[in-house]
Amino acid sequence: MQILDGKLVAQTVKEDLKQKTDILKREGKKPPHLAAILVGHNGASETYVASKVRTCEELGYQSTLIRFETEVTEDELLQKIRELNQDDGVDGILVQLPLPAQISEEKVINTISAQKDVDGFHPANIGKMIQGQPAYIPATPYGILLLLEYYKIETKGKHAVVIGRSNIVGRPISILLSQNTPTGNCTVTICHSHTRNLKDICLQADIIVAALGKPEFLTADMVKDGAVVIDVGITRVPDAGKKKGYALKGDVHFETVAPKCNYITPVPGGVGAMTIAALMKNTYLAAIQRN
Amino acid sequence: MQILDGKLVAQTVKEDLKQKTDILKREGKKPPHLAAILVGHNGASETYVASKVRTCEELGYQSTLIRFETEVTEDELLQKIRELNQDDGVDGILVQLPLPAQISEEKVINTISAQKDVDGFHPANIGKMIQGQPAYIPATPYGILLLLEYYKIETKGKHAVVIGRSNIVGRPISILLSQNTPTGNCTVTICHSHTRNLKDICLQADIIVAALGKPEFLTADMVKDGAVVIDVGITRVPDAGKKKGYALKGDVHFETVAPKCNYITPVPGGVGAMTIAALMKNTYLAAIQRN
Repeated sequence: MQILDGKLVAQTVKEDLKQKTDILKREGKKPPHLAAILVGHNGASETYVASKVRTCEELGYQSTLIRFETEVTEDELLQKIRELNQDDGVDGILVQLPLPAQISEEKVINTISAQKDVDGFHPANIGKMIQGQPAYIPATPYGILLLLEYYKIETKGKHAVVIGRSNIVGRPISILLSQNTPTGNCTVTICHSHTRNLKDICLQADIIVAALGKPEFLTADMVKDGAVVIDVGITRVPDAGKKKGYALKGDVHFETVAPKCNYITPVPGGVGAMTIAALMKNTYLAAIQRN
Repeated sequence: MQILDGKLVAQTVKEDLKQKTDILKREGKKPPHLAAILVGHNGASETYVASKVRTCEELGYQSTLIRFETEVTEDELLQKIRELNQDDGVDGILVQLPLPAQISEEKVINTISAQKDVDGFHPANIGKMIQGQPAYIPATPYGILLLLEYYKIETKGKHAVVIGRSNIVGRPISILLSQNTPTGNCTVTICHSHTRNLKDICLQADIIVAALGKPEFLTADMVKDGAVVIDVGITRVPDAGKKKGYALKGDVHFETVAPKCNYITPVPGGVGAMTIAALMKNTYLAAIQRN
């Protein structure tokens, strides 16, 4: 059993991007510039955005953090996005989700220029990804592909079972794994809350991507020997024994599933650790396409 | 075993659209207007486009057929598309595929305004479809959904196996069947040329969509009793006994598979018969969104 070490791979990706950014600067070109919009004071969102801004600094990227109070109107937010779309100095734009109820996430995402949509949530990016055109792949599925690539995990002809059909993880990774690419060509089954016989389906899987958001849902009896298990879940579960009062749990019951696997991602330090690296890779791509 | 009669359902859809178009006209609004571009003299393309134009006439739609010689440059074609995008009188634009080698189909599709892309091939439409936003669904998968709907075939919780991952059929129908909609909520497995044990996978299927383009590929030993079989294939197979010198064959070996099925589409007269009706439905939607 080998751990798919998201921290290690993320570090490798980031070092590569830092080197490339150094080269850009030496050539007199401007470094990638990410603009992040944060609305309100949600704790998790604050943490994520801070981490993204910090990573920009590490890599030598430029970053701009734009904050709005919870009460901001949809119009004000959309207006700011349009300004950033027009701003030639900005390569990538992200709006940290979730947003307050008065603001349509759909409108926000559709308003971000597809060329600057480094989160890969814009319909035009999703559509291009599906058609095999160059596109920004959403950070979490992109992170999974980078892990598979780094560890040279064979996907061709394998049966991948994806549990969860969200727009940001389950759906795109199910598509990416079945495409005709070096990290694709799987037979892919996508499962969700209406799936019957989920256990039987999982037992056929060479690769399982658990992305349903239920802590420790995938248990050893659902996994065949030698499987590759990718755990996308990350839920705070109360744990009095921990300093913070909670433990982070994935969608996989790691202790019992891990011994059966050829490869497995831990939580934390697996897929989650990859997402910011993937976002930084998209931001770099956005910058060189505009340079 | 019941035949899913594409001709009958298409007729029902078209009658409904004709009535709605009559109402538009009575209200003094303009009828839907489809502009079709045909390049060169490919026999099958000529037939398809003629049939689309004729159906427009039947329904009281306006149609414009624009023809180019095979030698047309990419620029000329794109310029015409841009004109049609700007033309307020035109609701839907389709460019009949395939195109000659000097013209990029990708560029052509990306140039059609997403609001007028009644074929549903534009990345922004595909992306919106995936995110569950209002979008034009490509005609063939849309036709399949209309068939399932008409015959009230339960999809929720069923295991659907889609054979083929093309951008215009296999991929979108695999997504649509797994979405949280009245004709979705299937567990969906998408299979393709790299799939191993295809027979075993098909034998698990409650619903099979055969969209690989190999005549009579799906045989009785691959289908479980009571399955629903949707045959998307349509290939001309030489047949000296036929007046035209060929017979139309689907991807399903109908004679042996049909007796095992609860429902099956014939070829011709199944999915193929639905596609123009689905295109007309998209064109009507385009028109009322612009009225």
